[in-house]
Amino acid sequence: MNSSRLEQLHTALAQAGLDAIMLNPGPTLTYLTQLHFHLMERPVVLLFMPEKDPVIVLPELELPKVSLIPYKVNPFVYGENPLDWKAVFHKAILSLGLDGKKIGVEPRQLRLLEFQYVRDGAPEAEFPDATEALGSLRLRKDQAEVKAIRAAVKVAQDALEATLPSIRIGLTEKQIAAELTVQLLKHGSEPELPFSPIVSAGPNSANPHASPSERKLQSSDLLVVDWGATVEGYISDLTRTFAVGNVEPEFKKIAGIVLSANDAGRKAGRPGIPCGNVDRAARSVIEQSGYGVYFTHRTGHGIGLEDHEEPYMRGDNTQMLYPGMTYTVEPGIYLPGRGGVRIEDNVLVTNDGVEVLSDMPRELRVVG
Amino acid sequence: MNSSRLEQLHTALAQAGLDAIMLNPGPTLTYLTQLHFHLMERPVVLLFMPEKDPVIVLPELELPKVSLIPYKVNPFVYGENPLDWKAVFHKAILSLGLDGKKIGVEPRQLRLLEFQYVRDGAPEAEFPDATEALGSLRLRKDQAEVKAIRAAVKVAQDALEATLPSIRIGLTEKQIAAELTVQLLKHGSEPELPFSPIVSAGPNSANPHASPSERKLQSSDLLVVDWGATVEGYISDLTRTFAVGNVEPEFKKIAGIVLSANDAGRKAGRPGIPCGNVDRAARSVIEQSGYGVYFTHRTGHGIGLEDHEEPYMRGDNTQMLYPGMTYTVEPGIYLPGRGGVRIEDNVLVTNDGVEVLSDMPRELRVVG
Repeated sequence: MNSSRLEQLHTALAQAGLDAIMLNPGPTLTYLTQLHFHLMERPVVLLFMPEKDPVIVLPELELPKVSLIPYKVNPFVYGENPLDWKAVFHKAILSLGLDGKKIGVEPRQLRLLEFQYVRDGAPEAEFPDATEALGSLRLRKDQAEVKAIRAAVKVAQDALEATLPSIRIGLTEKQIAAELTVQLLKHGSEPELPFSPIVSAGPNSANPHASPSERKLQSSDLLVVDWGATVEGYISDLTRTFAVGNVEPEFKKIAGIVLSANDAGRKAGRPGIPCGNVDRAARSVIEQSGYGVYFTHRTGHGIGLEDHEEPYMRGDNTQMLYPGMTYTVEPGIYLPGRGGVRIEDNVLVTNDGVEVLSDMPRELRVVG
Repeated sequence: MNSSRLEQLHTALAQAGLDAIMLNPGPTLTYLTQLHFHLMERPVVLLFMPEKDPVIVLPELELPKVSLIPYKVNPFVYGENPLDWKAVFHKAILSLGLDGKKIGVEPRQLRLLEFQYVRDGAPEAEFPDATEALGSLRLRKDQAEVKAIRAAVKVAQDALEATLPSIRIGLTEKQIAAELTVQLLKHGSEPELPFSPIVSAGPNSANPHASPSERKLQSSDLLVVDWGATVEGYISDLTRTFAVGNVEPEFKKIAGIVLSANDAGRKAGRPGIPCGNVDRAARSVIEQSGYGVYFTHRTGHGIGLEDHEEPYMRGDNTQMLYPGMTYTVEPGIYLPGRGGVRIEDNVLVTNDGVEVLSDMPRELRVVG
């Protein structure tokens, strides 16, 4: 599988007019090698150039991993003293003849640390943004990838269902997040979750990116849970909103509106339409209800090896949907200082529409 | 506490000859603001300049977090369309008059994404490496920081003790890692672990940076567990090695040597000596036993908000130890294809030596 991904990479580079790419540890490196490296103080860089064996620069103690790559890669290793690293990078770059070439980079992933070592070794090279070319490789999921995402959705849903009975007034957001994390692992998520679960209640639920706090769950709170699981490196990313006991009428009203928006967003997806249509389908429901100003983010994002990746469901995104793309649909309404509602599902674009991968009840269920 | 950290920052910048620093989400930003942002496709940048209110550039939906910073920060927010971001960065940089200045950066943390936005807005600025100046702030832990690290050590030790009874032949490395992760959370670790536990057995234990695999635990394996917990953002990082039933005599021998090296490394630390002495104390024990070539990494690294930070226990590191520094002592011997032993403790430099924060038995205990 991976050597065919390598061939696709070479095609993508040719189309983008790139001579090579440099990757540091992250999802694209994992996609192309099946290897996980952690970002650390020691730089790790993979250099791909068509017609030549790829090159990897890495610490000596990571060398055993290189043999796990399913094709030949030339390793250049360095020891513990950072003063020696520059020379090793220089040799690696020389071995590929990279100076003066167009070396594509991923600005969202690449750190100055790795960039500076490569730039110093190839002072005449250009470093264009290769995000789009590389993103295109990962945009359409193959069967194995879809299977993993499907499994990650199931693990996430089962874990939240197993957590719900333990949720009660007086527990802190952090305690609920910890129990959900335990359940995610028990149900089979890999230890490296796509993100730490967001559990936000009361006024905190009006912050779409809240971190779980020491605030205790209170009666009449809205409770937003945004969580996901990892299976074989692939992730799910879901959100459900709950009512803690009886909540005020406006909270019930916005929950109904967000549900309609989620429904419209899910149903809008099909091959051949721009991503923007999905956003507009969900957003127009909220705008027509008069709450448009409280829906402060885009409707969704792609999912795969990363939690946020292409394609982005943003109103002005003209990128077309194709079969095999996977993304979230997650409209929300956030009333500052009071509470918020978000409902997030994961969908797969099929030949004639979308398949919704998540099926947990979306209504405002009562907990606590 | 944080505004005093801000004053220390200004002193450190003056000493390093820097006019300002730029930070993206990561430990230094957290240290200076108490805020957690995640690295994502949307750039977040904090700009500090003495004599002026700090500036933060961030997505509109993250704005609520800014009010949690314990001093005044001027926010510059942007919406969902990346085409608009450049202008927002430009305005933020203009508000501080940053162009032409020396803006310190952290190459290990800063991505090209954030760097390019700031560089485009300040084309005449210089961007020197501020790692050392910023690292110096975080090097000596205050009482609250030590308390958190101490708690993170206790959580980690209790979690592994709770995991040991469930370890048996036939379990995979991944299963053991999942159970340990569950126990870490149950014992009070924050969901964001410092790193996913390393559980490596048999030949895999000879790879110091192995990821847990589907390999099943077998009789006569060495089993290395490298794990840690997070409490209030601060981490612990420990390693213990176990024998699965009866192991071959050479494995017992190297376990004894590594224990002596760990002991020597722990005891070597005290204020006023260079980090290199700690490395040499541990390494010379292993070298004298004839296994020097199989100890392939440095003896330790600093711990705090990050799992790997200054000071590094590397033979050639002349950095001096001071009271309040916290670091790991983790010598190992790795016999390729056969098995490895590592014993890792966390220590705090005191006024006249070190206090060892971890006290779990270090001998080669039998499990399975």
